[in-house]
This record gives sequence, structure tokens and C-alpha cells, in this order.
Amino acid sequence: MGDRAVCLLSGGLDSAVCLAKAVHDGFEAYALSFDYGQRHAVELQAARRVAQRLGARDHITVPVNLRLFGGSALTADIDVPKGRDTASMAQGVPVTYVPARNTVFLSLALAWAETLGASGIFIGVNAIDYSGYPDCRPEFIEAFEKMARLATRAATEEGPAIRIHTPLIALTKAGIVRLGAELGLDFSLTHSCYDPDAQGRSCGACDSCLLRRAGFAEAGIADPLPYRV
Amino acid sequence: MGDRAVCLLSGGLDSAVCLAKAVHDGFEAYALSFDYGQRHAVELQAARRVAQRLGARDHITVPVNLRLFGGSALTADIDVPKGRDTASMAQGVPVTYVPARNTVFLSLALAWAETLGASGIFIGVNAIDYSGYPDCRPEFIEAFEKMARLATRAATEEGPAIRIHTPLIALTKAGIVRLGAELGLDFSLTHSCYDPDAQGRSCGACDSCLLRRAGFAEAGIADPLPYRV
Repeated sequence: MGDRAVCLLSGGLDSAVCLAKAVHDGFEAYALSFDYGQRHAVELQAARRVAQRLGARDHITVPVNLRLFGGSALTADIDVPKGRDTASMAQGVPVTYVPARNTVFLSLALAWAETLGASGIFIGVNAIDYSGYPDCRPEFIEAFEKMARLATRAATEEGPAIRIHTPLIALTKAGIVRLGAELGLDFSLTHSCYDPDAQGRSCGACDSCLLRRAGFAEAGIADPLPYRV
Repeated sequence: MGDRAVCLLSGGLDSAVCLAKAVHDGFEAYALSFDYGQRHAVELQAARRVAQRLGARDHITVPVNLRLFGGSALTADIDVPKGRDTASMAQGVPVTYVPARNTVFLSLALAWAETLGASGIFIGVNAIDYSGYPDCRPEFIEAFEKMARLATRAATEEGPAIRIHTPLIALTKAGIVRLGAELGLDFSLTHSCYDPDAQGRSCGACDSCLLRRAGFAEAGIADPLPYRV
């Protein structure tokens, strides 16, 4: 049996590929999702399907109501932008940014990892198709890892230092799609859209849909998801 | 109107003194408490009283169910140790340690601070009456502050860098009691016990009660709380 790792799993393309990589690398995977008041709660169903199919040892969904703080189009009543080109996506921090989201998610992953005696946390951030989120960059991940060493039993040498694994950090979206295909991931289990309809169908036009579709197109692989437009 | 600051408020002695200090220093205080499945939920009532009395601009209690992860006497079914001397308290990480608790709390404070445009977070940790918690030490706080700069809009210079204020970090428990008295804090509003009875009365013998009582005794100030023993 391999080392344990906590794997952040939103149910989106990136986190599913990231979990597949952790399992492929021999980790015993503990998948962790959050119900944080996101508009696209349908992704939590996707997370459940992905965790099950990939053989995660356990899967917890933790409710953390980030709506209490407001401040993002993903959690408050602000419109999700549609049909933007990648140049405008890259300008500044977008309204879909949820303040300190990855910090909150990694901290809760750290709490579970310490309890499990896990040696790693997997997170599917990537810094290439840069979406303007400050908490997706390597400098942030390194600073979090350093802080985590001082925050836990590792600081007093009563526990392992916990490594933050970011296998997607240097990949383009097309590269992520290719890696997922190599690992045999069933892409139809994943969900990426920020603004799905009542049936859970993707809008096809929000930043997340556009990046996903461009990635599949560039990789020359068919995206099995149905889109409204 | 002063700068905004998010103040972590458990309802215990230390966090109440810390909030009083933030208000005294001219910050517009936003008090933040957590319902994390702690045994001593009576402290949340204390937090409400303290926030109100000290004139916090707002007070939110965020549910974060750390029981989902288990691993601590404060959240799982492990007995709270009683009647220990300070020497045994100082040995290793105690069972009342909640894995990565301060990291989780500071991360959520960071999310709120960023939404509010606050310039600071106040946390009542102290490293002198060292209780064996790794996440109460200055090295941890510094590493968290550095990580926070990279995690938020401050990283792209679209927001302020958020400072972590730890006004109690170099104080003994007696020093904290004296500071609270100087600031005019009504100590009867606070709650410290890890294992209160059904009426909310303090046990008088857990680590937290023992440290509190020793602090009041050393400061030569009467503790207004009733104790069972």
C-alpha cells in the first residue's frame, strides 16, 4: 500500500486529471470536495462520480459557506462573464475569483492530511493557461508548503512534512487533456461550466467552458460533454 | 473611521483581550467565530456577548465541521486531560490539538479580510505559556503572512497586503489578564473551559482552566467565573 494523499477534487477536468495522476503514481487517495455555496453545485455530483470511478479510498464533501463572505460571481449574485477571448480573461483578477479560495481549501486538506498521517496533498492548479487567479501560481504553492511545515506536527518532528503536489502546474489545457487521455480518464464524468442550466448542461460560453473546449480542440481529442451553444 | 480588521474570536480570554486591543488601536473590528464541532460550544455564546459589548462592526459565526476529519479531543470522543501540571502540558503536542486549526481559521479570516478590503487580521495566539500547539508560534504566523501576500489580490497589487497582528504573542497569561484589565474588558463575558457542564460552568481542572486560573492568580486579579472545583 502506497503513501496516503489528500486530493482536492472539484469535479472539474483539472482536478479529475490530478486525482488520476495521484492514483497512477501509487498514492492511496483521499478525495476532498467542498460545498462552498457555488452556483455550479452540479460539479459536486461530478466529483462523486470521479472519486468512485478512480478508486479513491474515501471521499468527503465538506460544507464551507463562503457565501457568508460574498465578493465573487461564483458565490454571490454577480453575473458570470460570457464569450470573452483569452486576452481579456488574462487581464487582472476576474469576478469569478473567490477570495482566498485555494488557501481555504488547502488548509482544510492540510487538516485532513495531518489526521490521516498523509505525506501529500494533490491540487490541480496550473499557471500556464493563466486565468488571473493569484492562488494558482507556483510562488503561492511554495509559500503554502513552507507555512504548512510550521503549522503541523511536522514542526515538532512528531509527524511527516506534507508535500503539495501540483502535477498540472506547467501544463497547458491541451496538455492536461492529453495527460487525462493517457491515464484513461473518462472525461464524460467531469464538469467544468460556471453557469450550467437546470439539467446540468454546460453553457459553452463562460471562461471555464471556453478554456476547456479550446484545450480539447488543441489536443485533437473529442470532448464528450453536451453544450447548450 | 479606522482601517478594517478581521478579529478571530473564540469567546475565550485571549481572543477577547485581542479584540479589545484591536478596537483600542482604532480598527473597525469584524469579529469571526467558528462552529467547528467543538465540545465547548458554550464559548460561541461568549463570543457573541464579547463582540457585542466591545462594539465589533459585525460578527459572523462560520460553521466548519472539523469533526469530519476527527483526530482531536476537542472534536472527537477522546477524554480531555485533567489536573496536569504545566510541565506535562509542555511535553509534545497534546490531544486537545486540532490538526491545522489555526491555519484553517486564518485562511477563512483571510477570505473575509480580502472581501472587506481589510488591512489586518488579529489573532490571540501566544508563544510564552506554550501549550504545545505548533500553530501558535511566531515562525508559523510569519510564514502565514508571507503566504497570504501571494494568495490574494495583493499579489497582483490590486489589493492591500494583509498583516497578521498578534498582540499577545509575547505575553504570559498573567500579562494577558493585566492587558485585558487595562483595556477595561469585563472578564465575566469570556469562557475558557474545554469541558464545561450542561449549565456552561467551567470544570476548573482542564489545561485551559488551569492556565487561566494561574494567570489571574499571578496578575493578582480576581477571576469572576464560577468553577465546579
